[in-house]
Amino acid sequence: MGHRQLNSAQELWVRSMSNDPLVIFTPSGKRGHFPVGTPVLTAARQLGVDLDSVCGGRGICSKCQITPSYGEFPKHGVTVAEDALSPWNAVEQRYDDKRGLKAGRRLGCQATVQGDIVIDVPAESQVHKQVVRKRAEARDIVMNPSTRLYYVEVAEPDMHDPSGDLERLVTALQNDWDLPALEADLSVLRSMQSALRKGGWKVTVAVHLGDAVFSPRIIHIWPGFYEGTIYGLAVDLGSTTIAGHLCDLQTGEVVASSGIMNPQIRFGEDLMSRVSYGMMNPTGSDEMTRAVREGMNALFVQIATEAGIDRSLIMDAVFVCNPVMHHLFLGIDAYELGQAPFALATSEAISLRANELDLNLHSAARVYILPCIAGHVGADAAAVALSEAPDKSDDLVLIVDVGTNAEIILGNTEKVLACSSPTGPAFEGAQISSGQRAAPGAIEHVQIDPVTKLPRFQVIGSELWSDEEGFEAAIAQTGVTGICGSGIIEVIAEMRLAGIVDGPGLIGSAEQTGSPNCFQDGRTNSYLLYDGTANGGPMITVTNTDIRQIQMAKAALYSGARLLMDKFDVDKVDRVVLAGAFGAHISPKHAMVLGMIPDAPLDKVTSAGNAAGTGARIALLNTQARREIEATVHKIHKVETAIEPRFQEHFVNASAIPNAVEPFPILETVVTLPEVNHNTGGGGEGGRRRRRAR
Amino acid sequence: MGHRQLNSAQELWVRSMSNDPLVIFTPSGKRGHFPVGTPVLTAARQLGVDLDSVCGGRGICSKCQITPSYGEFPKHGVTVAEDALSPWNAVEQRYDDKRGLKAGRRLGCQATVQGDIVIDVPAESQVHKQVVRKRAEARDIVMNPSTRLYYVEVAEPDMHDPSGDLERLVTALQNDWDLPALEADLSVLRSMQSALRKGGWKVTVAVHLGDAVFSPRIIHIWPGFYEGTIYGLAVDLGSTTIAGHLCDLQTGEVVASSGIMNPQIRFGEDLMSRVSYGMMNPTGSDEMTRAVREGMNALFVQIATEAGIDRSLIMDAVFVCNPVMHHLFLGIDAYELGQAPFALATSEAISLRANELDLNLHSAARVYILPCIAGHVGADAAAVALSEAPDKSDDLVLIVDVGTNAEIILGNTEKVLACSSPTGPAFEGAQISSGQRAAPGAIEHVQIDPVTKLPRFQVIGSELWSDEEGFEAAIAQTGVTGICGSGIIEVIAEMRLAGIVDGPGLIGSAEQTGSPNCFQDGRTNSYLLYDGTANGGPMITVTNTDIRQIQMAKAALYSGARLLMDKFDVDKVDRVVLAGAFGAHISPKHAMVLGMIPDAPLDKVTSAGNAAGTGARIALLNTQARREIEATVHKIHKVETAIEPRFQEHFVNASAIPNAVEPFPILETVVTLPEVNHNTGGGGEGGRRRRRAR
Repeated sequence: MGHRQLNSAQELWVRSMSNDPLVIFTPSGKRGHFPVGTPVLTAARQLGVDLDSVCGGRGICSKCQITPSYGEFPKHGVTVAEDALSPWNAVEQRYDDKRGLKAGRRLGCQATVQGDIVIDVPAESQVHKQVVRKRAEARDIVMNPSTRLYYVEVAEPDMHDPSGDLERLVTALQNDWDLPALEADLSVLRSMQSALRKGGWKVTVAVHLGDAVFSPRIIHIWPGFYEGTIYGLAVDLGSTTIAGHLCDLQTGEVVASSGIMNPQIRFGEDLMSRVSYGMMNPTGSDEMTRAVREGMNALFVQIATEAGIDRSLIMDAVFVCNPVMHHLFLGIDAYELGQAPFALATSEAISLRANELDLNLHSAARVYILPCIAGHVGADAAAVALSEAPDKSDDLVLIVDVGTNAEIILGNTEKVLACSSPTGPAFEGAQISSGQRAAPGAIEHVQIDPVTKLPRFQVIGSELWSDEEGFEAAIAQTGVTGICGSGIIEVIAEMRLAGIVDGPGLIGSAEQTGSPNCFQDGRTNSYLLYDGTANGGPMITVTNTDIRQIQMAKAALYSGARLLMDKFDVDKVDRVVLAGAFGAHISPKHAMVLGMIPDAPLDKVTSAGNAAGTGARIALLNTQARREIEATVHKIHKVETAIEPRFQEHFVNASAIPNAVEPFPILETVVTLPEVNHNTGGGGEGGRRRRRAR
Repeated sequence: MGHRQLNSAQELWVRSMSNDPLVIFTPSGKRGHFPVGTPVLTAARQLGVDLDSVCGGRGICSKCQITPSYGEFPKHGVTVAEDALSPWNAVEQRYDDKRGLKAGRRLGCQATVQGDIVIDVPAESQVHKQVVRKRAEARDIVMNPSTRLYYVEVAEPDMHDPSGDLERLVTALQNDWDLPALEADLSVLRSMQSALRKGGWKVTVAVHLGDAVFSPRIIHIWPGFYEGTIYGLAVDLGSTTIAGHLCDLQTGEVVASSGIMNPQIRFGEDLMSRVSYGMMNPTGSDEMTRAVREGMNALFVQIATEAGIDRSLIMDAVFVCNPVMHHLFLGIDAYELGQAPFALATSEAISLRANELDLNLHSAARVYILPCIAGHVGADAAAVALSEAPDKSDDLVLIVDVGTNAEIILGNTEKVLACSSPTGPAFEGAQISSGQRAAPGAIEHVQIDPVTKLPRFQVIGSELWSDEEGFEAAIAQTGVTGICGSGIIEVIAEMRLAGIVDGPGLIGSAEQTGSPNCFQDGRTNSYLLYDGTANGGPMITVTNTDIRQIQMAKAALYSGARLLMDKFDVDKVDRVVLAGAFGAHISPKHAMVLGMIPDAPLDKVTSAGNAAGTGARIALLNTQARREIEATVHKIHKVETAIEPRFQEHFVNASAIPNAVEPFPILETVVTLPEVNHNTGGGGEGGRRRRRAR
């Protein structure tokens, strides 16, 4: 009565009753009895323990490393003897000599069960290993990549029973790896016969496991056992920059990250000017498509060089981007996105071959582009949703991805809403008199003394405040060149806290404010932040026009969020997540003083860093996550701000600092906002009365 | 109680009990009761009657034409009144004015049921219409193409409920046509938005319905109703010629046929010399791949020009070819096919995009290559099997595709065997002293007078025999230039019948044969067929070396067939099918006198014409046939002649004319083979004795 004749449930039952040695795996806790001589890998497979192997137990790949434990285990009710596993064998010795095996480790395919044993499967020996992310609140990435490596030994051709080499290879993969009947890429068909013969009928293949569009197929073949790895790319395709993360598709590790400027910038700084370029020039759309794809290929070269790998080992790539970049990257005219009703060509996720987009990766590499949420809320927002998982949050979370266009998501396990709001480029330092991109020399942090009303600041590249000793020396290289986005938010919020600017957003005169740095500048007042003219540097000021730009930008952001809160029928949110590179540098307190974001406990306002990039990486490393975000995006309720009557009302209210109507009770426990009014038309009291009357 | 709430079985039951008018469709015989006012197309759909429609019943496409019948129908038990259908309406009038409707026809979507009615669905209104083939014995082709046209009206975008244009298009196709959730080709995504708007949200799409490799997808989009058709190509890729048939994918009609020489000829006339070229030259294989693909593209231009259509309307292509051409076309080195064990890279059918093979058809056109049977029995043989269907034959059929390499199939419903045999190029006129390709001026038919032993013949291009009046004038243009393959078979068979050549294949002298046309030619004798030297033409003779070449070729063919008969355990076959262009011109009697084919009633030896090309056309027009031949090929038992000991024995026996050992009893009832022996070594009698002794 061979075990082979039992089904697997019966087999496990028999095993549980057996007098054979007991094998207990940790951390899974799975256990079963196995006959003496059973390889640990075999026991693991039969119990469904996640123990990796590329070579199928032939002692070649070393992926199945395990750590046996010896001694008393009262918890498990076993005592493990020193000889519970077979002795260290020649295969393990050879591997150890060649590459070194960590102390206490054995190869699961070589060590066989001799007695009761407790076996730990270290994280790196698991197929579905977790990739640890830096932030505690973010969920872990479980490895489940699109493409995997398999080693097989293939039957040789037989004239008496003729069959194609591919058919025998596919049969071997079915038998050894339980894979379905695979297709082979044409490139594989071309190289397969020589690989099989060169490898002595032993080969390693890369298999793309398939999705809704592509059937599972062999996309690469190496003679013998391939000792290297394969790679995937997670790309965040922004209007301004393109950032890529090269990941090891076996370990999930990020092996290189790199970025370039989006070459489309020469067709327009912001998205709408690119849409216009496409409308004005018959070949404009195609030119922009060519430019972004060429840029992408340049990035691939750069990142592969940095990692010291061959670009053709990159077999999968995931892209996230806003709708306009999405269309232009795919070669779709973005015309419809420039006008109501802002119809996307498609909002669904897209699976393609990389060469359909002229991308120079592996010849059969796949491309996955996350779904778009709506005409203004793109695959980048979907990636943020994947990374921050509002649909899995018990408390109500507001996620704001701050950029030229802000994507705003509000939700919890009950429902998720999304919209976008046209914040414009002010938060990136554009359209601000002394504004600049975040770069060494840019002012990024500002404090204004409540008594002297004089500023001090930090610039990117130095930890010293401008009034600290050694500051001049520290900035000698870069100088003080301007104010970056987060610096602008801080300086305006500090000006509001110091009473230099009032609620409606007017900068007072030196007399009104008591600050010597206020000065008349045309018909309004400006505030001097830094005077470098003595050293040939700039004079850095905040003008009232700057304030107006930031007021419009933050009002757009806030009113989008507020609109979603209306739709959710709530007055407050439990927490706020600031996504995007810019979001990472914003001071929550200052953002709330400005009224950019709704009132919330400051410790509940966190940064998610480049959440879109993280979402891309999750989708790259875990194909199940792709199905999840596709389902989530279907369920997200899209709100189009342009047609919501209340948006305008919220916008007007939110133009004040922090807001003309809405209270910020939590903020008021942290800071005191002086009740000043610099309106010269009616004086302090009059202005105050007018504001109250609204 | 709306009908809508019933399931379809219930609905049909209710309908059968109803007092509503009875609608009877012919030829299907399907019938049901429908409420007054039901459009005929709706009734047909609900009953599952095969009535075509591209526009979905909007009176645009006219595909749903039907012919109502009036009067008494005792067979059906109904009387059809003159007003059983609604009167001719404006839509029908407009269509008739514009394009003309055949007398008695109505549009099924416009005419509504008013009383009991008998409706005939003409063949051209059926989706799964039968394409009539020329030969009676061949099975019909039922239309079931890979790619179809659908007209839909798509919902406009709505800012309140944003969705991609593609998603609304796909939804419309699901709702109107019961199609699955379709993918869209990238080219469709690029052109869709403008097509939707240009067509006023009405479009026609071409949908590839999917297969094992490709998910169903939209591959083309036209604004509004597309009045044209789409095309497919069936291509027979031979070593010497490439022949293509352009078919209308809606009607199945062949709209143009064209052929070119295979440009690979410059690398070698026969397959083995091409395999050698690939082995001797590092870039040889790639050069040959490039050459055949370029040739293919040239053929496409030629055939599209002939048909007066745009090449980009060709959306599907099916290829059949021998294994070497198969590999070289796919870009696979044919090296392994040149040596034992003759391992194919793959024997399975292949689905690709045309652009993967650098073919210039529609940008998303699909390519299907039939499966190969074995290393020497290719997709062309599979196509022959599809066309001639030995697996569906009750009597035992031997199918022989005569070429440089003969593919031989023997089978019936019980089982099917296949092998190939290296006949060499003699049957194509090569390696024959006066041999030439079949072309005007070539001798194709020969008779030798049994008394005078003088020949007469016909040449290609004239119906007159050479001894008939007007022959000289008729051939003045072409002359008499040589003997083509079928002519060689006839002249040698006639020489054998006239006793000019003996069983072992020796030509007798003028004295031995009594023919003045026999003359000594070196160490053997030759036979003069035509002396054109007086007019500056050639002297056309049959030399003993020519006889030897044909003996080897026909022995290879026969011994392959005989080997399959051994494996089938039979001594005779019920019928013989000669496939291939050459097979179409062979005289069955002469072939049997030569002993090329097994003994069989002459009326059971038929020609299938270009069966490989027909098989390609079947696979093009009916995707179900692709699944059928894939299954059939899996079941075909492959016999490798090279490793069968009996092959050599059969070959030696079959070298004699007709055969040294095997009797041809049926043939002997038709002709008398003189018992002559021209062996000069021992004289007539001696030679005869020796032959008997073997």
